[in-house]
Amino acid sequence: MSDAHDPHGDVSLDVRELSAELAGGEDRATDPDVAAYALRLGDDALILSQNLCGWIARAPELEEDVALGNIALDLLGHARSLLRYAGSYDGRSEDDLAYWRDEPEFRSVWLFELPNGDFAHTIARQLLASAYLLELYRDLAASADPVISAVAAKAEKEVDYHRDHAVQWTLRLAGGTDESRQRFLVALDDVWPYLDELFRDEPLHDRLEAIAVRPSSLRGRVDDVLAVVLAEEDVPVPSIPGSSAGGRRGAHHPSFGPLLAEMQVLARRHPGATW
Amino acid sequence: MSDAHDPHGDVSLDVRELSAELAGGEDRATDPDVAAYALRLGDDALILSQNLCGWIARAPELEEDVALGNIALDLLGHARSLLRYAGSYDGRSEDDLAYWRDEPEFRSVWLFELPNGDFAHTIARQLLASAYLLELYRDLAASADPVISAVAAKAEKEVDYHRDHAVQWTLRLAGGTDESRQRFLVALDDVWPYLDELFRDEPLHDRLEAIAVRPSSLRGRVDDVLAVVLAEEDVPVPSIPGSSAGGRRGAHHPSFGPLLAEMQVLARRHPGATW
Repeated sequence: MSDAHDPHGDVSLDVRELSAELAGGEDRATDPDVAAYALRLGDDALILSQNLCGWIARAPELEEDVALGNIALDLLGHARSLLRYAGSYDGRSEDDLAYWRDEPEFRSVWLFELPNGDFAHTIARQLLASAYLLELYRDLAASADPVISAVAAKAEKEVDYHRDHAVQWTLRLAGGTDESRQRFLVALDDVWPYLDELFRDEPLHDRLEAIAVRPSSLRGRVDDVLAVVLAEEDVPVPSIPGSSAGGRRGAHHPSFGPLLAEMQVLARRHPGATW
Repeated sequence: MSDAHDPHGDVSLDVRELSAELAGGEDRATDPDVAAYALRLGDDALILSQNLCGWIARAPELEEDVALGNIALDLLGHARSLLRYAGSYDGRSEDDLAYWRDEPEFRSVWLFELPNGDFAHTIARQLLASAYLLELYRDLAASADPVISAVAAKAEKEVDYHRDHAVQWTLRLAGGTDESRQRFLVALDDVWPYLDELFRDEPLHDRLEAIAVRPSSLRGRVDDVLAVVLAEEDVPVPSIPGSSAGGRRGAHHPSFGPLLAEMQVLARRHPGATW
């Protein structure tokens, strides 16, 4: 086979945008409450993404590598948009917020911080997380804040796929072999206590009436969705009391410290590096 | 904010395809040489993908996390298509080939197996790898084998982006600070000996005249592209002798064993699991 094109002519040395534009563009947050709210949403997405990245290259199937990798990258995209907006209030970049905050400054919930565990634990965590995020972003798409609304509208479509993915794996595990069902039941019990924290209202939500979604308003719909999915394979809804958790006030799950250290080590080793 | 939709109505429990169709579809390889050739191409893509996955969640910038993650997932997609086709010859699946072969059965080249090193090493490896893969897939898009041609046509577009990414980082590192330039020069010297192996013809290529690309036929174009890019920031083309390497006959770089162990541990821990 031969090649007729000019080997030099198509080496583009022009700088072009390497990644898609962030949703929300260049708009700045001018209200500290809006910035604090965007920070919570962004931290949740960032931490779940970091956790899921741990599966890439070690899922049980190559196809699953690709699926979990894509979900992790979607979440990282949401995190970048939300952290960029949160940081715009006081002149910090998304990288400042991701790499230079210490553990108590993060606002992620414990469900998102839980370790991957075995594959069943990851799927159980994904089921709860995506059921919650889909209802949240659906409502947030109608937020009076144009940036939050734009990010949520984009995220909603992607999280819809994430929930489909989690639902199908839930059915496959719960309806599969005895071992896969047993592992899924154990995993569901292990993650269930961290569902409560997702629905706790704070004074911040009162102050952002038309902008934020009141977490407690999502509970009924998320519970309904989970009940429908679990009933499909006769999995009983766990009746396990909720953990006190505390991510929204900076008190994190024990597995959060190591996760953060791994995420931040490179950026902190070369402070101020231009690359 | 309120929500008017039926909370049950949109939980889809139907099984749908979770990932994009593999290029090449269901076609089977009927020639053992074609299968062996597809295996080489697939192994290269698989191993480089696994290596790049190591960067996700620890790149120096969140934007770079996303970029390297997307490149890794592109390569994993190429690997899946090629390994599926290679395995169709004797009834093995893509997962059989990825998770159940031992080190001497892999056919990847050493350049793709080199450890990530620091970010400059990863970029230097990406520059050489993507310059080679782009010329390779461009020619393979005209292969007389319809599956290899289809995979190559899809991969060419993606690898074009990968090369742009590597070129831009090369210019940014080589033309950046003294430290970034120095690190890039060291990295380029470290990866350069493994360029030679990419262009070695084998008897297999003689037997696949209209189907395979003769590796030596790519050398001139790849050298030209690299020379143009490096000249842009006055980086001298290294004059370092090539390593004997030996990936095509199953002799791999020392870092390959640990990489393989990490990739295969989960699948091998649960042999025959349905999930």
